[in-house]
Parts: sequence; structure tokens; C-alpha cells
Amino acid sequence: MEKLKKYISVKDEDKFYHQGAVELLVFNFLLILTILTIWLFKNHRFRFLHETGGAMLYGLVMGLIIQYVTKASDVESGTVYECEKLKSGPSTLLINITNQVYEYQYKREISHHNVNGHQGNAMLQKMTFDPSIFFNILLPPIIFHAGYSLKKRHFFRNLGSILTYAFLGTAISCIVIGLIMYGFVKAMVHMGQLKQWEFHFTDCLFFGSLMSATDPVTVLAIFHELHVDTDLYTLLFGESVLNDAVAIVLTYSISIYSPKENPNAFDTAAFFQSVGNFLGIFAGSFAMGSSYAVVTALISFMHLTKFTKLCEFPMLETGLFFLLSWSAFLSAEAAGLTGIVAVLFCGVTQAHYTYNNLSPDSKTRTKQLFEFMNFLAENVIFCYMGLALFTFQNHIFNPLFICGALVAVFVARACNIYPLSFFLNLGQKQKIPRNFQHMMMFSGLRGAIAFALAIRDTDSQPKQMMFTTALLIVFFTVWVFGGGTTPMLTWLQIRVGVDPDEDLKAEAASQSSSNLDKNTTKAESAWLFRIWHGFDHKYLKPILTHTGPPLTTTLPEWCNPVARLLTSPTAYGDQLKDGDTDYIINNDELTENYESSAHIPVPARDRTGSTQATGKEDIQEGDLGLGGYKLQLQPQMNSPA
Amino acid sequence: MEKLKKYISVKDEDKFYHQGAVELLVFNFLLILTILTIWLFKNHRFRFLHETGGAMLYGLVMGLIIQYVTKASDVESGTVYECEKLKSGPSTLLINITNQVYEYQYKREISHHNVNGHQGNAMLQKMTFDPSIFFNILLPPIIFHAGYSLKKRHFFRNLGSILTYAFLGTAISCIVIGLIMYGFVKAMVHMGQLKQWEFHFTDCLFFGSLMSATDPVTVLAIFHELHVDTDLYTLLFGESVLNDAVAIVLTYSISIYSPKENPNAFDTAAFFQSVGNFLGIFAGSFAMGSSYAVVTALISFMHLTKFTKLCEFPMLETGLFFLLSWSAFLSAEAAGLTGIVAVLFCGVTQAHYTYNNLSPDSKTRTKQLFEFMNFLAENVIFCYMGLALFTFQNHIFNPLFICGALVAVFVARACNIYPLSFFLNLGQKQKIPRNFQHMMMFSGLRGAIAFALAIRDTDSQPKQMMFTTALLIVFFTVWVFGGGTTPMLTWLQIRVGVDPDEDLKAEAASQSSSNLDKNTTKAESAWLFRIWHGFDHKYLKPILTHTGPPLTTTLPEWCNPVARLLTSPTAYGDQLKDGDTDYIINNDELTENYESSAHIPVPARDRTGSTQATGKEDIQEGDLGLGGYKLQLQPQMNSPA
Repeated sequence: MEKLKKYISVKDEDKFYHQGAVELLVFNFLLILTILTIWLFKNHRFRFLHETGGAMLYGLVMGLIIQYVTKASDVESGTVYECEKLKSGPSTLLINITNQVYEYQYKREISHHNVNGHQGNAMLQKMTFDPSIFFNILLPPIIFHAGYSLKKRHFFRNLGSILTYAFLGTAISCIVIGLIMYGFVKAMVHMGQLKQWEFHFTDCLFFGSLMSATDPVTVLAIFHELHVDTDLYTLLFGESVLNDAVAIVLTYSISIYSPKENPNAFDTAAFFQSVGNFLGIFAGSFAMGSSYAVVTALISFMHLTKFTKLCEFPMLETGLFFLLSWSAFLSAEAAGLTGIVAVLFCGVTQAHYTYNNLSPDSKTRTKQLFEFMNFLAENVIFCYMGLALFTFQNHIFNPLFICGALVAVFVARACNIYPLSFFLNLGQKQKIPRNFQHMMMFSGLRGAIAFALAIRDTDSQPKQMMFTTALLIVFFTVWVFGGGTTPMLTWLQIRVGVDPDEDLKAEAASQSSSNLDKNTTKAESAWLFRIWHGFDHKYLKPILTHTGPPLTTTLPEWCNPVARLLTSPTAYGDQLKDGDTDYIINNDELTENYESSAHIPVPARDRTGSTQATGKEDIQEGDLGLGGYKLQLQPQMNSPA
Repeated sequence: MEKLKKYISVKDEDKFYHQGAVELLVFNFLLILTILTIWLFKNHRFRFLHETGGAMLYGLVMGLIIQYVTKASDVESGTVYECEKLKSGPSTLLINITNQVYEYQYKREISHHNVNGHQGNAMLQKMTFDPSIFFNILLPPIIFHAGYSLKKRHFFRNLGSILTYAFLGTAISCIVIGLIMYGFVKAMVHMGQLKQWEFHFTDCLFFGSLMSATDPVTVLAIFHELHVDTDLYTLLFGESVLNDAVAIVLTYSISIYSPKENPNAFDTAAFFQSVGNFLGIFAGSFAMGSSYAVVTALISFMHLTKFTKLCEFPMLETGLFFLLSWSAFLSAEAAGLTGIVAVLFCGVTQAHYTYNNLSPDSKTRTKQLFEFMNFLAENVIFCYMGLALFTFQNHIFNPLFICGALVAVFVARACNIYPLSFFLNLGQKQKIPRNFQHMMMFSGLRGAIAFALAIRDTDSQPKQMMFTTALLIVFFTVWVFGGGTTPMLTWLQIRVGVDPDEDLKAEAASQSSSNLDKNTTKAESAWLFRIWHGFDHKYLKPILTHTGPPLTTTLPEWCNPVARLLTSPTAYGDQLKDGDTDYIINNDELTENYESSAHIPVPARDRTGSTQATGKEDIQEGDLGLGGYKLQLQPQMNSPA
């Protein structure tokens, strides 16, 4: 008899494994379906649905099917058991049930009012991820890839604007959304539309900070495909990448803001502590991420006398690159910092230094590996978002709150883009034109980060309402704004089919011929960039990579012995063909007028003929960009179907 | 107050995430250390420690450090709580502890005697994986990679021998180990060295089946690096790949063998049911795996009139390839079959058909992706094996049993290799020479599969003793036999520095010049292969890939309309440059005599000059093989340091 029972228990356990397989299979099926649909769409040149939008749609449909086809079961799971002997929740719980010991693992704490939600559909319950999976597994490859594929040259040209939008803009957005929502909640409570929950101003600010993380992946994919003006692309991409980092740290800082007394009153000490937290966490994560990248660069650069270089073994090199980048994330998490921010700056630094030291094989391997991981993770998240409408058991739909949030999000975006653009345009002659501003306003989609931040904390009822609202806003912006990108580009007459390298060449040409405007182009960017570039070019590059001038020429003479030790032997011969020089912007440089060129549809250009303008260590957008699809230039862009 | 409590609970939850980060960081650190060590070893051409052996060593050291440096904690976890209200263990348990509801997730069932083991070190406990992680996450990429990188031409040339060793050999090995261990256990019980547990013959057979899975990854890596005779390489690689599949299904069949009455008596019905299970599961998994691969091949082959082919979008193609291959695994698991076996045959079929349809970009991407996943998964498993000596809480060390098992394993390997080689040599003139047999005997290392099979079931005390024994045998074989491979090759005078393509050419040359031996080479392999190849070449290849003759020429005339529809337009022009022909073995073909050539050290050859002999669709071993390291031919091989 006991024998028999054991076999049954083994079979039960097997059933547990197999059920996990079924759920993963559902996800696989959704992703396969998404890929096939996108293939179809690409054939017909439909651009109104990006793969992420498609994944979300399929997730939604699948959730609907599971909800209504499979039946509610597992009645046991809604019951709460009492345990008087326990004082706190241990991480592992052993329970004796009918003379058999079962091991249970701590999952989370649940509020009393959420217990009922657990009487739902067993299949949907099993398809619910632990929210930490988003932060620890799915987001890091996406964010790292964003950092690794940052188009450095154009990024640094627009550094000032990008930093302004990302830091100041996100703060503005957070505060504006927080204020509007607070007013809205107050009004709703007044009108009796909302029960008097504990809806504090900090909760509203929390919502503001998580809704401030923009994720224009759909828009960027279309920009990339149509070769939209590179400056606009860079502005938007750079803003969205850094803005994620800011929003994540901001959300964390607000969530640990705990005024001592009345939670509605302003507590100066607690406020400054939060600001301090923000700065500390941001700086710490930045330092953690970049130092891991520097270590990777140093290891891959190492060439002891008797040693084969690491780049002789591409697999070891790729493995080390991957593991050290992942360690940057994990170390930041372990140290109580923000792993996502660390991994972002790790990616940027890896692209800047380590990439130069890698063997050609490893360059391709790492690029393709992270591109692939990004592709999968992105589609899984968007798929899950569609499903979450059904898998999440404690939705609180409040139409008024949702409408209010939608208004708040757009007002906040407007308060971010237009005033900041105005101030940025004051300082520089090379204005950010009106149509760019409108396009940036329009591209304020919400996506993976907002969702992940919202799902991380859904204990209280206000948080649940926020999560539901965030989810619906993501749906709305991705489908409506994502789908409307192509018509919007036409309507705003933004030029497409731009070759980024041709662009720079044209600038250089116009520089010598035109004398209309003698002032500096993006002076403040150049100024900021110039200082950093000088230091980087003279000292960091020669120490960390095989490029740049030998340290013996850049360091003072008394440092010569050290300098000689640190300089790569190849650096001496490399002085002339240093790849960095092509993106230093001269102060008296001129660019084409955006406004005038926006009216001229630029024909498809031969990309292969223009690569010689690119610095050898500049990562090609075409190689690293979104999806790696073949270029499909569209000369008929001004009259799309 | 309640507010404060919530913040604390959020912080507690964060602590949970961060602890996960610390454990992953430990693994990352171990892997980084392994990579750096291997780099060092490669520089000094040390071959006595492969990366997997190194990973295992570091895991062991790390386990030792954690065990003695961190202190035992989490006293709560050893206590068993009573719950009278529950009848069975639900998958999710809600518990009310001091007015706060906690959610717990079902992990597993524990025997009463194992409860004490839970009072161990908290850090080590947290580093313990769920055994299902091995089967669902770590093994599939390894096994898929093995299937995908199978060197088809040489594999099919030795198909008969490989199948004999894999099926018959594994069965022999299982039974021999089972019998020896049963005798041993009986003797130990008789001598009072072993308590009278429920140690049945089926338990011994179970041990025999799991110990029959060989994993000569270390040996194969060295073979690959030294370019050991291709036939020996293929025999060993092919045997180990198929043998894993056989051992896994065998273990499963034995574990569900449940005689109705006395478990020690032989029950004919139950026995035949087990045999039926084995055949059913094996065939089902095979069908599942290959059908997914066929679907992938069909999709990637599809070219509707107005459609761009999928290979225009390498990212979509790679994604689809990856997801469908993974789905093969998951579907098999969900259907109650063996996912690992499905994924193996999926890999073989993908390499045979789909690989031909992929774009060049996707070919590289998929190869490198699976190579990388294999590299990481393998090192994680071996790292974990080292750790498992400390993380596993219920080790039962029984020196006598371990010695007995070691003897049994080697006797069983001898009973597998020598008699089967003798019978195989009867049927063919091209003998498997003595030194090959000794080398195969020597290469019976145990590794990841044996470990994963043993850790899956550690509930009863006999199973725990088996797990401990299996773990120690893995340690012993990997370090001692893995480290002894190079000296053994020299001692057995097996030729190294062989170019597989040159090898085939030499065969073709000797075929025309030498007349010493007119009989068939590996006649039975060729015969088996010939039938299959004819069918494959004439019908499957033209339907599934762009290669092979047009169907219109191979199908009967009345099938012409269907044939014309199914044939790729490129097939018509492809008739002459069909890549398959180079590995059809003619009946009157001759090969070099192994024995004589074994004495001649073959100098390093120019690999680049010899690729024209390879069929265009044959995956290059140098590209796909273990590790992807640069070739380091060793002309001084006969006198290694």
C-alpha cells in the first residue's frame, strides 16, 4: 500500500512539471503566432501593427479563451488556514497533512481583501508570473540591448537635449501626473465616485512616476524602418532609454518616502531623504554598471607577454562578456541599488570600450545574442500584458479614474516636451523644430517598464486600481499611437529615407559652402561633450582599448614609464586612423535646416556606398537596431496606403 | 502604523529579491572564474582539466566555503506544522499568521525522515535548485545542441555500430549494474553493513539505468581539439548522444514499473508493460521532435507567390526556429513523453532539413546561439554538481556501496563495449580496432544526465544513497578519466591531427588504388543507410528543402501535377550540385586501415584548403563543435608534457 502511494505521489509530481510545460507552450504558441503575423504584415507593408502590439493582441485573445473555455477549479485555494504557532512567515513551510509532510515555499503576502481573488481559474492562475521575473529576467536584456545599441555619435551630439528631457522632463511628468490625479481623486471622493481609501498624495506621485516611463518601441521600429531623420530618432531613443532609468529610481524613491506623521502633510526631512535616495541610487547604479564594463574591457584588453589574448577564444570571450554584464545587474540588486539602471550604463560602457577589444566573431556574437534576447523578452512582456487583463485577479476598473489618468498622462507629456523644447531652443541656434516637438509629444507611448513597475506592488486597493489603469493606458497608447505613427509622420512632414552617414557628410559639405548662420550648432551639447571626449580620448580609450593615441603622448613626460606599460603596442600605429575623430562636432559647424529639408522626400540611397564615413568602432545601427530586418526603403512614403 | 507595516513588508519582499541576486551572483562568479581558469589552461596547453571539470572543482570549493563561513540560521524551517483541516496538499496555500495572510506555493512532498535535513545552512538551502530546472531548462539546450551539431556524414557511416552501442549497450549496462548492485546490497545486508531498507531489485535496476547515461563531454572536447580519428570521435559522440535518450526513457520506464504483488518477484505483465512504455515513449518522443522540425522546415521553405521568404527576416527566422524547437520539448512533456528525447531528434532533423532553408545569417545565428546556450548550461550543471555535495541536505555516504557501484559501472561498460564490438566486427571487414575499443571503454564518463536523473527522485533513503553515489562517481570519472584522456590517447597510439575531409578524400583515393580488401566497408551501416537515404533524397529533401532532385523526376509520372506544385523552383537548377552525394558510401569502397595508420602521427593540415570536399549543407564540425575554440593542432602530440 505504501509503495502504491509513493508511485501516485511521483505521478502527481510529474503532473506538476507537465502543467508548467502547458503554460510555457501557450506562451510559445502566442509568440510563434506573433512572428508569423508580423511576417505577413511585413509582406504587405502594414505598419499599423508592430510585433509588440500584435503580441499584446494575441495575449488578450488567449486570455479571453482561457477565461471562458477552461473551467474554474481548485476550490481549496480560496480558503485561508489559521496557524497559531507561527509568529512570522518563514521562507519554507513544512506542513503535515494526513500524515504526509509537504514543503511549501513563501511566495508573497496578501491583503485580506485580495483573498477572494484566489478562487479563480486554475489555468490562468498558473500562467501568472511572479512580478520579480519582469525585473530580474525579462527587463535586463531589453535595457542592456538599448544601452549597447545606442548610436553613440548622434547620441552625444544631442546629449544636452536628451539629458534635459530624461531628467527634468521625467520629473515634470511625474509631478504633473501626480498633481492632476490627486485633484481628480479628491474630486471623485467628493462626488462619491470613489470610496475613501487611503489615497495619499504619495500614492498619486507613485502613479505619476511609474506612468512617466515611456517606451516608444513601436515608434522607434517604424522610425528605423523608414529611416526617419536621425536627430529625431536619437532624441526619442535617448530620451526613452534614460527616462526608464530615471522613472525606475524615482518610483523606488517615492515608494520608500515615509513621512513620520501625517502621510498627507509635507515632511521636509523625508522629502530630502527621498531626493538623496534618488541621487544615491542613481549614482551608485551608474558606478556599478560602468565599473563592471570597465573590468570586462580590461580583461578583454589584457595581453600579458606569454598569453594568447582572450579574443582567440570567441566562446570564452562571449561568455565572459555576458556573465560580467549580468553580474553588473545582480551586484546592483544585491547592494540594494537598481539593477536595471546598472545594466543600462553597463551596456553603454561595454559598447564604448569593450566592443573595440572584442574579436570580430565575438562582436557579431554579442550583438546578435542581445538582439535576440531583446526580441524574445520584449514579445513575452507584451504578450503577458495582454494576458494580464485576465490572469490578474484583483483588477479594479474605475472608468473615471482611467479617463483622468489618460488626460493626466497627455498633459504631463505636453508639459515635458513643449516647455523644455522652448528652453532648449533658447540656448541654441539649431532649434528643435515644431514638427519634431509634436512627434515627440505623440510618441509618449507607455510600455514594459510602466507595466513592470505597476505590477510589482499590487497589495492595496489604490495600487490595484493604478495597475489596471496603467495596463489600459499601455493598450491604448501602443495600439492607437503606435498604429498612427506612419500617418503622423506624413502629416507632420518629417523627412524619411535619411541615411545617417550621408546626413553627417551633408553637414560637412554645407559647413564649407553656406555662411548663413555662423553660430554654434548645439553649443551646449558640444561643450559638455568636448570636455568628456577630451578626457576619454586621451586617457580612457588608450588604457581600456586598442584605439586612441598612445598614453606616452597624452600624459605628462614624468608619467612615461607608467604610460609605456599601459599602452597597447598597436596604439602607436593607430594614431592616424583613430575612429573617434569623426564625431567631434566643430563649434563653427553648420547643419542643414531641418524645416526646409522636411519637405523634400529623400529618395532611397545606396547604403553600401556610404559606410566609409563611419568610424570603425561605431556600432552600425543597421546591425544592432531593432529586429535586424532587411531595409525596406519606401520612396512612396509621402502617400502611404 | 498600518502604513509603516506595509513599508516594512515591501522592504522584506525586496530582501527576497536581493537574496536571489546574491545566489545567482555566486554562480556567475563561479562561471567567470571557470572561464578565466580555462583561458589560463589553454594558454599553457594543459589538457588535464576541461572547463566542466574546472567548474565542478570551483563549485565544490564554493560549497565548502559557504558551508563553513556562513552560519546556520532560519531555525523555523525545521519545524513541521499540523493542519487537520486539509485533506491533500493544494498547489497554493493561504495561511493566516498573526492576522496577516501569506501565500505559499507547493514545492514537494518530503518523507518524515528527511525533515531534519531542513535545519541546515540558509544560504546553501537557497542555492538549491528545484530538480525540474535541470530537465526543463538546463538539459534541453545541451541535448538540442548535440543533435544539431551531429556530424551527419560520419554519423550515418557508423550508424549501425552507434545504434548497437546506444540501444543494446545501454540495456546491457543497465542490467549488469542492476545485477551487480543487487548482489552487493544483499551481501551488505547479510554482513550487517546496510540496514534492511526496502532495497528492491527494481531500485537496483533504476540505479543501473541512470548510471548507464554516459557523458564524455571532457573526452570529446579533447578529441575535437586534437583532431582525433573522426570515426572514433563519431562513434563516441553518437553513442553518448543516443545513449542519453535511451537511459532517460529506460529510467522512466523502470520507475513506473509497478508489479502488483511482491515487489521482489518478477511480474511478467508489469515487465511487458514497462517494455511497452519504453518503446511507446521513445517512439512518441521521436515522432514529436521530428514533426516539429518538419514544421519548421516547411515554414522556412514556404514561398507563396507574393510573399517574401521568411529568410529575408533573419530575426523572425531565428525566433521561429528557437520557439518551435522549444515547443517540441514542451509538447512532449505536456503529452507525457520525454522532452529531452524529443528535443534531441528535433535537433537532428532541424540540422538535416531546416538548416538548408535558413538564410546564411540565420545559420550562423542559430549555430552560435545554441553553442552559447550549451556552453553556459553545461558549465552551470557541472558547477552545481560541485555545490550539490554541500547543498543537498540528505546525503547518505556508504563507502562500500560507492566502491561496489564503481566496480559495477566499469564491469558494465566492459560488458557493453567488448562483446558488442566483437559482434560488430564479425559482420564487417572494417573492424573496430582494439585501441578504439579500449578508448571507448575508457571514455565511459558519467555526467549531467546521470546527475539530473538521480536528483529527480531523492525521497527514499535508497534513492538518497544512490544520488550520493552517482555524484561521487561523476566526480571521479570526470577528473580521473577526463584528465587522463591525453596520456591515454598517446598510450593507445590513436592517431591525432586528422582532417575529417582529408580523411574522406584519402578513402576515395585508396578506393581506386588499393585492391587488398574487396569486401564492403561497414556493409550493414551502408545497407541501413542506403534505404533511408534513397527515400530521403528522392522525396523528403525536395519537399522540405531547396536541395535534391525535382520531385517531377523522382515521383511516378501520374503524380506530376502534385510534384510540380511541391518542388522548389531552385531545385531544377540544383540537380548537379546536390550536396548529399558526397556521403553516400559505395559498397565497394575501401578505407584506410585504422591499425596501420594509428602509428603514423599525421601532421597538422591546412584546413582551409580542404573544404571543397564538404557538401554545402553539411554542418562543419569546426563551426558547430564543442566550444568553438580556435584550432590548435599539436604536431608534438606523441610526446605531450
